[in-house]
Amino acid sequence: MPLPTPEGYRVLDEGSLRDLLAGLPAVAQRVGGDAAAWRIREVGDGNLNLVFIIEGTNGGICVKQALPYVRLVGESWPLDLNRAFFEYRASVIQAEHCQGLVPEILHYDPKLYLIVMELLSPHIIMRRGMTDAVVYPRFVEHITDYMARSLYFTSDLALPAARKKAMIAEFCPNTDLCKITEDLIFTDPYRVHELNRWTSPQLDRWAAMWREDDQLKLAVSQLKVDFLSRAEALLHGDLHTGSIMVTEAETRVIDPEFAFVGPMAFDVGKLIANLLLNYLSHDGHETRPGERDDYRAWVIDTIHGVWHGFATKFVALWGKNRTGDAYPRDLLPDDSSVFRQAQSAYMARLWTDSLRFAGASLTRRTLGLAHNADLERIGDPDRRAACEKRVLELSRDLLVNPESYAHIEQVTARAQALRARDLG
Amino acid sequence: MPLPTPEGYRVLDEGSLRDLLAGLPAVAQRVGGDAAAWRIREVGDGNLNLVFIIEGTNGGICVKQALPYVRLVGESWPLDLNRAFFEYRASVIQAEHCQGLVPEILHYDPKLYLIVMELLSPHIIMRRGMTDAVVYPRFVEHITDYMARSLYFTSDLALPAARKKAMIAEFCPNTDLCKITEDLIFTDPYRVHELNRWTSPQLDRWAAMWREDDQLKLAVSQLKVDFLSRAEALLHGDLHTGSIMVTEAETRVIDPEFAFVGPMAFDVGKLIANLLLNYLSHDGHETRPGERDDYRAWVIDTIHGVWHGFATKFVALWGKNRTGDAYPRDLLPDDSSVFRQAQSAYMARLWTDSLRFAGASLTRRTLGLAHNADLERIGDPDRRAACEKRVLELSRDLLVNPESYAHIEQVTARAQALRARDLG
Repeated sequence: MPLPTPEGYRVLDEGSLRDLLAGLPAVAQRVGGDAAAWRIREVGDGNLNLVFIIEGTNGGICVKQALPYVRLVGESWPLDLNRAFFEYRASVIQAEHCQGLVPEILHYDPKLYLIVMELLSPHIIMRRGMTDAVVYPRFVEHITDYMARSLYFTSDLALPAARKKAMIAEFCPNTDLCKITEDLIFTDPYRVHELNRWTSPQLDRWAAMWREDDQLKLAVSQLKVDFLSRAEALLHGDLHTGSIMVTEAETRVIDPEFAFVGPMAFDVGKLIANLLLNYLSHDGHETRPGERDDYRAWVIDTIHGVWHGFATKFVALWGKNRTGDAYPRDLLPDDSSVFRQAQSAYMARLWTDSLRFAGASLTRRTLGLAHNADLERIGDPDRRAACEKRVLELSRDLLVNPESYAHIEQVTARAQALRARDLG
Repeated sequence: MPLPTPEGYRVLDEGSLRDLLAGLPAVAQRVGGDAAAWRIREVGDGNLNLVFIIEGTNGGICVKQALPYVRLVGESWPLDLNRAFFEYRASVIQAEHCQGLVPEILHYDPKLYLIVMELLSPHIIMRRGMTDAVVYPRFVEHITDYMARSLYFTSDLALPAARKKAMIAEFCPNTDLCKITEDLIFTDPYRVHELNRWTSPQLDRWAAMWREDDQLKLAVSQLKVDFLSRAEALLHGDLHTGSIMVTEAETRVIDPEFAFVGPMAFDVGKLIANLLLNYLSHDGHETRPGERDDYRAWVIDTIHGVWHGFATKFVALWGKNRTGDAYPRDLLPDDSSVFRQAQSAYMARLWTDSLRFAGASLTRRTLGLAHNADLERIGDPDRRAACEKRVLELSRDLLVNPESYAHIEQVTARAQALRARDLG
């Protein structure tokens, strides 16, 4: 029996999508030519939605339609269609602050839970490129703009409280997608759960250790309550290299369907974790040891650049856009030492929390349901497991000892030391 | 020109209220007798609303109607009528968890922004009783039940995330009242503002010191962002001895119109601050030194009892009602040492944050707009100022050095030491 859906909803196929788009003049014009001649392909390789590419004589567009269940699992795991609405709303808000860094939204259909957006071409998913050791020279510049601006301008530092609370309320109903994060990141990898998977038998002992490690379970539980209760800024909610499309010249952050108002450090930490994980994956891809040393050096530089660039830009935005109700200028004047002190304390907490969330993200990618291509594409399970053990060691240390890392360079040094210890 | 109000709203007087209530059979029955013979008085002495008492042959009821402005100030300060709705909704939620500790709600009129509730008689406002040195032997037992239950059962410890977020969203629009707190507690006393007032000229120098004290301004700004962003539990929002009605046998918490989902420590700290302030006020009321030593000893015991009782009951509720999504039982089993460790860390943070919020509450009652009868009723400004200086010293220390207080007994010892230093 199909899942119940709201009146007016139907799952589109190539034919019905063609008819729908042909009836949207601005969209049809953008594709160009006779609608009957458009080339339409369903290309969704993600876990949740239908994704179509439509190409005509003028160019192409991309259409994303929510299904009433998790595509990866099937109708046994229903999932709120409204995630398409939240993605649409988050896209609109982010476009205000991050123009050129997110896809242009062309149309939203509230009955079909369908978003029409620009086609990103020849962009590819960054994780795919990084797994193949492709350098993206503009990435740090772009992503730090995105992070600093999307987080700053939706925080209490930029928004008056009434506007911030209206935004909180608007995204509160996106609970189905938040629950995925709550379960898959902050809970399941630390308990016996049928959805967990790992490289077995190589990591069996590690998975067991994680389920028995009280300090890890305490640390991740404290993160979970932060995720549940700290309404700091509008998050992307799933900011990793699989949610970023790139060319050498451009960067676009896609898929903000997990958006909600939560702790900023979740976005920051998740991205840093995915870069660290990529760094630790290349030993599994090299055809000879050291082959990817140059690429690893670029990844390390990128990690440093992401934190420093984000922090520098965030503080600079704060200095110039004191339009929110928090940290009032009357109490903390521009250019005063107390304002600098307030900024330092704020960024110090954000730093430590980012490391904690990074730690949680590393474990979920090795012991939880959803793994990363960076590691999954290592065919030899022994080689993959060797990399994954280093990921897990780093994960644990970031979760349990975040205060021992004062600088991002100490984090990457730890990742480098884990390799050096094992590989000489 | 009168402020615009929604269609159907009108300010009631005794006549129109009589007609309204006569048309509500259950309410009319509770009052009893011929409606024309009911005794109706407007008794509002608060800052915001109309309050009527209606008495008939069976008993009495109380009616509270929101005005579209701050009554204390006039139409120049408009205030959202919907605060009556939020008070009604918070009352309903609190009644589920705190039966017998909040007034029974008999009727809500959404067009008139009017709440009909039980008449509390012979209860008086607790602050009035405490200013007259009246002991309330059941108060600690009752208020700690109220605090522990109202906060615990609306937190992520008790609620699944989807229900918690629905509650957050429902109360997000109560921004007008939150803004009063944001301004009057966390901002205005630390800057030049026309609404500030203090015992002058005695405290002029102190008010100036507060406006120039960077560490205070940093500390209170960090509290403000917590108030704006930490959605931990449904707060009363104005929990002080002026929002509590008592007899020797009973305790009722009234007026939750400031309710919103915020940091638990705000409610806890505000109440503790108001008790500390009362303790420090009696030197201004005594007709001979030492006259109120016994009462002061009771207040000190009460302060200890409030924190210990709240903390003990909160932890006990947590042990028995693990129905929320935070701190999952699978990771932190009942009776495990790691669960106890999680509880200790949680309560330690709540303790420190409560002291910080208590510190902010003490300053606003001496240098801000709204003062307390405890101090205001001291006629001699020199004697009043002497007490207020001790309040301010304690306030500063709680705001700037909260970590130096490991136990509530150290807080009261500090208050006692401030008296001993000045009074010998």
